[in-house]
Amino acid sequence: MKNFADKLLKSVKTFQNPSCIGLDPRLEDIPQFLKKGGISKIIFNFNKAIIDATLDIVGIYKIQLALYERHKIEGLIAFEKTLEYLKEKKKIIIIDGKRNDIKEIAEIYAETFLSPKGYDADALTINPYFGSDGVLPFVEIAKKHKKGVFVLIKTSNPSSKEFQDLVFKNKKRFYEMVAEKIKEWGKNTEGKEGYQIVGGIVGANFPKEAKRIRKIIPKNIILVPGYGTQGGKAVDVIANFNPDKKGAIVNSSRGIIFAFKKEKFRKKFKEKQFDLAAREAAIEMKKDLNCALCSYFP
Amino acid sequence: MKNFADKLLKSVKTFQNPSCIGLDPRLEDIPQFLKKGGISKIIFNFNKAIIDATLDIVGIYKIQLALYERHKIEGLIAFEKTLEYLKEKKKIIIIDGKRNDIKEIAEIYAETFLSPKGYDADALTINPYFGSDGVLPFVEIAKKHKKGVFVLIKTSNPSSKEFQDLVFKNKKRFYEMVAEKIKEWGKNTEGKEGYQIVGGIVGANFPKEAKRIRKIIPKNIILVPGYGTQGGKAVDVIANFNPDKKGAIVNSSRGIIFAFKKEKFRKKFKEKQFDLAAREAAIEMKKDLNCALCSYFP
Repeated sequence: MKNFADKLLKSVKTFQNPSCIGLDPRLEDIPQFLKKGGISKIIFNFNKAIIDATLDIVGIYKIQLALYERHKIEGLIAFEKTLEYLKEKKKIIIIDGKRNDIKEIAEIYAETFLSPKGYDADALTINPYFGSDGVLPFVEIAKKHKKGVFVLIKTSNPSSKEFQDLVFKNKKRFYEMVAEKIKEWGKNTEGKEGYQIVGGIVGANFPKEAKRIRKIIPKNIILVPGYGTQGGKAVDVIANFNPDKKGAIVNSSRGIIFAFKKEKFRKKFKEKQFDLAAREAAIEMKKDLNCALCSYFP
Repeated sequence: MKNFADKLLKSVKTFQNPSCIGLDPRLEDIPQFLKKGGISKIIFNFNKAIIDATLDIVGIYKIQLALYERHKIEGLIAFEKTLEYLKEKKKIIIIDGKRNDIKEIAEIYAETFLSPKGYDADALTINPYFGSDGVLPFVEIAKKHKKGVFVLIKTSNPSSKEFQDLVFKNKKRFYEMVAEKIKEWGKNTEGKEGYQIVGGIVGANFPKEAKRIRKIIPKNIILVPGYGTQGGKAVDVIANFNPDKKGAIVNSSRGIIFAFKKEKFRKKFKEKQFDLAAREAAIEMKKDLNCALCSYFP
């Protein structure tokens, strides 16, 4: 039976692109000429332009909830409209909320974001701190609705080493223990391609750690944030992939959607052409990743 | 200079009550006769009745975001109205979102919930998984606006032992390491009573662990969830307090707001009197906690 991972891998194959675009629309960075009407309109119009400009290049989009929640009801309207638009365009939608709580609340979060009664997105990011009974409700509800979850393993921020890299008495690093648990949480959710519906999150800037993690969870999709703006390069993210070039997707948010602000693109595109700059940045990212994959796994 | 902890301790003193009421209004549990009008109205009316019935008993209320987020815009309206009402009544408001992310996003969450430009609540619960640079933005913004944060240490769910109880090579348990970090994150935020603005969260059902944690962070407020419905008893939560009977607040959500569903209260109150049942449950909880504190720290 096909599962979330199959759907994701099919999208990657269709677009020949393991990229994911992060729709993190910081109001302060949105081009001035778009700032007409209410906040929900401004944010949605910006997102729509980015989606339209990358429609034929990318199949997966990630929505960072914090950027919408900050604008209260206006933000929520922009979030809902963006979600609807992505669904209309048949895109895969990952909601980035890093939600976590005890069982009863985890169930509610999962229903909210993954069930057809709720926002009906394809996947949600979650935090593993509570352990199994805080994670399994997400997995159960994802399973029920053919959706997925991505659990934080090794985050892209410098301080991720403070806890995540610590070694337990059993000689395992904390992030390795989380990876092991992910495999356990995903048990019996394998799809046609053999991948489970519980994925992991590993920062683009940690190739050494990624290699260890990939070994522990060969059949779980890894979502790799931190490409571009946060310092991760194509060559660094390769370790998150399997030798068949599958098993990982790489996210870039600001590097794509605000590409027009970068020196390199500013020369070529006017602010009004922010969408064309995003398109070019997305094409470049696709090329970079495919090139790195080809040379690493010839 | 007075800080968030001073404000909290003052409220505890005023009401002679270290209780916190969790406003987790599950729509399905709200009395039938209140179910008139839209969801936002139903939830707000329920919350308002609970707040009104406990106004003279409790000074601190906690809002579980998941219960509002699930109802989309209607939920957000209920959340905003509840927040406004609690402010009008000069109550201390803790928002329970367990938010967490990299620095740039942590800043946005903190501004959203703690700054006057955002929801302007008194405190927010957060998850420590990202380490310092994912936590300090919350602390900085809390400091700036005289607010507080509560960081998960030892959660009340059974699986909390899976990661939180593991022992690192340095012989420290994970939750002990988090407690140590909390003290570091709260450095130089001490108020008049000596308490820092960074608190911790320790489940009511873990007295042994609470004792160890209290020793590590004598001057940080501990928020204790899981009292009542989740199985924690008054005698179990005492270890979270200091010998001067200060330093902790104890939350009960369903045990108070849905008291009318409990066998014990059903005999005495009709469904229409759900607010009176909540009041009685709140008075009982106050008595229980004070009695346990008195006998433990005579």
